[in-house]
Amino acid sequence: MEGINETIQKQLEHRTIREFKGQKIPEEVFKLLMEVARRTATSTGMQACSIIRVTDRELKKKIAEICNQEYVARAPELLIFIVDQYRNCQIAKEKNYTAETARDMDRFFAAFTDACITAQNVVTAAESMGLGTVYFGSILNDSEKICELLKLPELTFPVVGLGIGYPDQKPQLKPRMEMRLRIFENAYASFENYLEEIKEYDEEMRTYYDLRDPGRPVDSFSNQVVVRFSQVNSKRQEILNVIRRQGFDLMVK
Amino acid sequence: MEGINETIQKQLEHRTIREFKGQKIPEEVFKLLMEVARRTATSTGMQACSIIRVTDRELKKKIAEICNQEYVARAPELLIFIVDQYRNCQIAKEKNYTAETARDMDRFFAAFTDACITAQNVVTAAESMGLGTVYFGSILNDSEKICELLKLPELTFPVVGLGIGYPDQKPQLKPRMEMRLRIFENAYASFENYLEEIKEYDEEMRTYYDLRDPGRPVDSFSNQVVVRFSQVNSKRQEILNVIRRQGFDLMVK
Repeated sequence: MEGINETIQKQLEHRTIREFKGQKIPEEVFKLLMEVARRTATSTGMQACSIIRVTDRELKKKIAEICNQEYVARAPELLIFIVDQYRNCQIAKEKNYTAETARDMDRFFAAFTDACITAQNVVTAAESMGLGTVYFGSILNDSEKICELLKLPELTFPVVGLGIGYPDQKPQLKPRMEMRLRIFENAYASFENYLEEIKEYDEEMRTYYDLRDPGRPVDSFSNQVVVRFSQVNSKRQEILNVIRRQGFDLMVK
Repeated sequence: MEGINETIQKQLEHRTIREFKGQKIPEEVFKLLMEVARRTATSTGMQACSIIRVTDRELKKKIAEICNQEYVARAPELLIFIVDQYRNCQIAKEKNYTAETARDMDRFFAAFTDACITAQNVVTAAESMGLGTVYFGSILNDSEKICELLKLPELTFPVVGLGIGYPDQKPQLKPRMEMRLRIFENAYASFENYLEEIKEYDEEMRTYYDLRDPGRPVDSFSNQVVVRFSQVNSKRQEILNVIRRQGFDLMVK
């Protein structure tokens, strides 16, 4: 394909890496990743996200328990990206401005967006250097406990975890649905019969072997969707209550 | 700095580009960007985000009005990244599974995260090809109106806008606070006196000229924080009510 450069080539080859070599990431490489984090776009320039670098073994294990994924504890680097309106709120207070609006949900979402795009920028930088990465959305299985473990002050909140290290596995490229089902011009367009539209994709998915369960191919995508929706976690469902406990004003009418 | 490759070099040079040449983005280049979007990491493989490509001039103008930024209408490509649990919910329904949990806020946040990291992956790919980008968080100035304009069905929600094109300006690299204020080991650490910690940064910020107002340097960071927190938009504050109107169950106790 025309236009493919090294950056894009790596992006197209993205795979989640869950098993890493014992080798640590050199501190200069880590600093470079943090420099990329620093230079990432940020909503209205406010830089309202922070990162907790988890190095303590016991803490890693506790987080892995919340995630219900033991390999979380084995990631050479474990970063938790967080919403952080606390820092700017403190800055405002020191300027004698009581920033009550720091509690607004739109500030929360701006910081949440900052945290996500920063994480992805770090992922791309890491992969460009031959490192592998794995996102841990599972830290939100118990967001309240994560707040407690990481001593997150008010106006902060965990967004996503990220494991980084030198890959010790070579997963297959995971099939993805066609973009024609995901991009629309000027207005959302739904399809009459989704199962028909994803028929080939459903089949293609059944040629994929997940290294967590290498003995058999994974389920069709549509079956995976049903399984996922049938998994309920009340702590995940009730996430807004934890967000409120962290000091945000939900302003729900 | 050791380890800097082409990808990272571009990431470190990131600037927001608000003025673009008239030149359109070739369709092959756009397709490549969408292929990068497709290959982006996604929570539990669910691919729960979509993109609205805004090509209609009148629609662009209406969105620019909501953003209160006339240059939104002039971006050669305007993409709106959205939370999309609608598609998977329909797939589940066609499998005779009434996926009520598609309405859960954790599904919303998973999709929101997907949308953000996809947007950032597109940004990196675009910049690697010499294109410039600008995020429009301002689409949330009136999220309800955006839902209406883009005909977003239930279980979808706008996350962030993105303008892409060939740069027609060369902004200065914008000063950013030191990462030592944004990364913590094992637990959040606050500082005694933030204004003292950001003193140099506050000064450095005053050497930056924003091309939107090139006649004078911008304000110190701490003053910008105060100004930002003093800007209130009730529609932005009350975003959760619109999210609920789109079919999500807030489960607020």
